[in-house]
Amino acid sequence: MISDLKNIFSTSAKGMKRSAIRELLKLTQRSDIISFAGGLPSPESFPIEKLKEISCEVLETEGAQALQYGATEGDNKLRELLVERYRKDGLDININNLVITTASQQALDLIPKIFINPGDKIICGLPSYLGGLSAFSTYGAKMIGIKLDDKGMRADLLEKELSLLKANGEKPKFIYIIPDFQNPAGITMPESRRLEIIEIAHKYDVLIVEDSPYRELRFNGSPQRTMFQLEGTGQVILLGTMSKIFVPGFRIGWVVAHEDIIDKIVMAKQATDLCTSPYLQKIAAKYFEKGYFDQNLKMIIDSYRIKRDSMLAAFRKYMPEGVSWTEPEGGLFLFLTLPEHMNAEDLFKIAIEQKVAFVLGNVFHCDGSGHNTMRLNFSFMSKEQNDEGVKRLADAVKQLM
Amino acid sequence: MISDLKNIFSTSAKGMKRSAIRELLKLTQRSDIISFAGGLPSPESFPIEKLKEISCEVLETEGAQALQYGATEGDNKLRELLVERYRKDGLDININNLVITTASQQALDLIPKIFINPGDKIICGLPSYLGGLSAFSTYGAKMIGIKLDDKGMRADLLEKELSLLKANGEKPKFIYIIPDFQNPAGITMPESRRLEIIEIAHKYDVLIVEDSPYRELRFNGSPQRTMFQLEGTGQVILLGTMSKIFVPGFRIGWVVAHEDIIDKIVMAKQATDLCTSPYLQKIAAKYFEKGYFDQNLKMIIDSYRIKRDSMLAAFRKYMPEGVSWTEPEGGLFLFLTLPEHMNAEDLFKIAIEQKVAFVLGNVFHCDGSGHNTMRLNFSFMSKEQNDEGVKRLADAVKQLM
Repeated sequence: MISDLKNIFSTSAKGMKRSAIRELLKLTQRSDIISFAGGLPSPESFPIEKLKEISCEVLETEGAQALQYGATEGDNKLRELLVERYRKDGLDININNLVITTASQQALDLIPKIFINPGDKIICGLPSYLGGLSAFSTYGAKMIGIKLDDKGMRADLLEKELSLLKANGEKPKFIYIIPDFQNPAGITMPESRRLEIIEIAHKYDVLIVEDSPYRELRFNGSPQRTMFQLEGTGQVILLGTMSKIFVPGFRIGWVVAHEDIIDKIVMAKQATDLCTSPYLQKIAAKYFEKGYFDQNLKMIIDSYRIKRDSMLAAFRKYMPEGVSWTEPEGGLFLFLTLPEHMNAEDLFKIAIEQKVAFVLGNVFHCDGSGHNTMRLNFSFMSKEQNDEGVKRLADAVKQLM
Repeated sequence: MISDLKNIFSTSAKGMKRSAIRELLKLTQRSDIISFAGGLPSPESFPIEKLKEISCEVLETEGAQALQYGATEGDNKLRELLVERYRKDGLDININNLVITTASQQALDLIPKIFINPGDKIICGLPSYLGGLSAFSTYGAKMIGIKLDDKGMRADLLEKELSLLKANGEKPKFIYIIPDFQNPAGITMPESRRLEIIEIAHKYDVLIVEDSPYRELRFNGSPQRTMFQLEGTGQVILLGTMSKIFVPGFRIGWVVAHEDIIDKIVMAKQATDLCTSPYLQKIAAKYFEKGYFDQNLKMIIDSYRIKRDSMLAAFRKYMPEGVSWTEPEGGLFLFLTLPEHMNAEDLFKIAIEQKVAFVLGNVFHCDGSGHNTMRLNFSFMSKEQNDEGVKRLADAVKQLM
């Protein structure tokens, strides 16, 4: 073995840490633990019978293409179906505005690959999706966190930060936003706030990356138009994925953006994995075409609504005063805030003894804040487990208090 | 849209070009063209019926796991099967030495991600696989090319280069080698040369990346031990893939390496695509387990041997004097050299008129040399098309002469 392995890793590799969440998940996979830690969809939502049917059909009718290399841009049929869906929603895009990625996480890797030089700044929410932050930091991006309120990223703080940077002759490469049922906060940005942020992005000439894995999982309230649509000139890059609305195991996502950006993403993807599995893309396309997608989505939404409600009801029933939580209108997560003087890490140890798990909120804060916060997933466990798990968690909180 | 999109791309994105080969492939997809340009396996080799059977079986028996997120390291069953295969071959490895990647191209992206800082040097063959070179240059690596002879990378030139670098206080991050049926040259490195290169790597304390997508596709001659095995201390990183020996459409590959390197690759992969499709990994594992893999591999080898032979026979029959070619003992490619004064680019234009296509050899040369060389794939077309295509190509050569 070479003498200095540790020293020859790249700067970014030297700073790499295993994802706190994925490592935690391993700890919490004991079957006696009720885990709110993962971001997993419910396996009951997986359309196994339909996929048996379609897998065979794809192999039968287009096996040679499905098992061969495919175009880096993605399967044309699938791209067309997704474009058509967005066009019905009011987005003015065509097939050249959409590239298929190996799920959203690949988009979160390719975007910094085409934009970030080490030391470049980007703006994200406080808190924000850990997988995004990890991917950006792999390219040496410096994250600037902007606090959220109950409408999402605060526009006043964003403008303040951008004006400070401008005074310094600096400009961030993009603003990373998850406007619908934000991970981890569970907050949805109303149209007014979206418009405010777009106006600021226009004023300061900055791109917005709109990460939208949960948008279709709305249980109540009115759907909000995407920032991509509201902005309208191609200054927003929109990310979508099948992971939460179909199955994560297919690893299919996409990017909608200005053609010049798609073009660079395609080139970057060529050097990254050549193409996303054509077999899985063709299955997904048929699943859409046959109308199964919409049927199943309705079933997922109904089931997650019940699970969210059971968790919220349990909070109201069991949680001691001083603990607050968000009440998401969709998605998979909600965010819990303990009294300021308490530490979620201390709570975690007691909670594990009580056989309930969650994710520490501070891992989602690029500035290390959020010591008294935690993310809870409500989609994976049953509604009964959501109730029992919150009960255990409330006992742990009381014990720590 | 922002005002300065072109300027805000990263340095690496500014330098990105669409893969010459993949763009060429689009041009050569006209059905009247006999294309030796792609690197595509033959669709006749795809085990469609078996995959219908196994796809259903996996969904039936482990659908919930197959469609869920999986471990970043890969499906344990598949990893175990691959490790077992290598152990039978004599490699002293365990499951912690192997990570599944989204095909080899992802490994070729993750390796520079964990080793390369912009400006770092790496050593590669002249010529060398374009997808490797593209991935490395995405991270700002500077390629140093070493000429091949009929035994692969020349050891004397390699030592000369390393000693020059050492005199300068420099050391490349790794030596990139495809020892078996090299892409594009079709050359296999005999054990003596492998040992020479390993000795040099030891002397100069440099890692070797052994890219091995074709090793199992041997038509004649004796299998050579992998450099990983010959080296024995963990200074070699070995890449494998299902793409040429099973199906490319599954996007499954793997890296075998020292545990400390695997550890970094897993962390880098977490931020890149979280995991490779568990569904496809489970299908692949079952395909191995049932013994289908070995049956089908034998069929592929028999069919490619016939195709290679038909191409070589056609060369001997049609090619004018002054043209030479390699005679690979396996793999998918061979390399053709025109007389020094001729230019393959001029030939390409005439060849397309004659309805035959190939890849220009210079795209595989990191120093831009190889103007009179070309890569031909013999696995995708039928043996009759191989004959007819070479006839057309020979006509084009004569016309250019």
